[in-house]
Amino acid sequence: MTLRHIALFRWKDGVTDARLAEVERLLGALPDAVPQLRSYTFGRDAGISEGAFDFAVVADVDDEDGFIAYRDHPDHQAALAVIRPLLADRAALQYPLPE
Amino acid sequence: MTLRHIALFRWKDGVTDARLAEVERLLGALPDAVPQLRSYTFGRDAGISEGAFDFAVVADVDDEDGFIAYRDHPDHQAALAVIRPLLADRAALQYPLPE
Repeated sequence: MTLRHIALFRWKDGVTDARLAEVERLLGALPDAVPQLRSYTFGRDAGISEGAFDFAVVADVDDEDGFIAYRDHPDHQAALAVIRPLLADRAALQYPLPE
Repeated sequence: MTLRHIALFRWKDGVTDARLAEVERLLGALPDAVPQLRSYTFGRDAGISEGAFDFAVVADVDDEDGFIAYRDHPDHQAALAVIRPLLADRAALQYPLPE
């Protein structure tokens, strides 16, 4: 099976584009660092919908062990250390993709 | 390009499994009804993470026009009419997938 992890972020007011670029640089390095990642995408909201969150991360892994390996990987934790102080809100879950 | 729409739902207390099965039946019919959907998956949270949302919908479309066609399709609106009364919280956004 494939397990899909989704995290949506809403940034605090005043988060700069430079800070977001740093977030993107840190996340962009994760596919090479975390072998459990089968697919990894992230990006900024396209501005279509009122009330939308600001940023999405979608990580596809094989199973719960793969998710835990990603979650606890030191490079991911380093990215989270930059992300957490910027967060006004966060929504996340993990769901199994259909075969 | 591909535009990815993500919606995460948190259900109110007391939502029954039968009601969730109805939601899944309505959503499961959308790929055949909405030709703009390139990929469409949804599912219940796997129960791994504390504080996770309960349900995810991920729709991949070509562009903003495709997203609007999905959003406004009567079959999708009919599904939303069932979903909305069940919602305690919702988080959503649309982001462009990398090429």
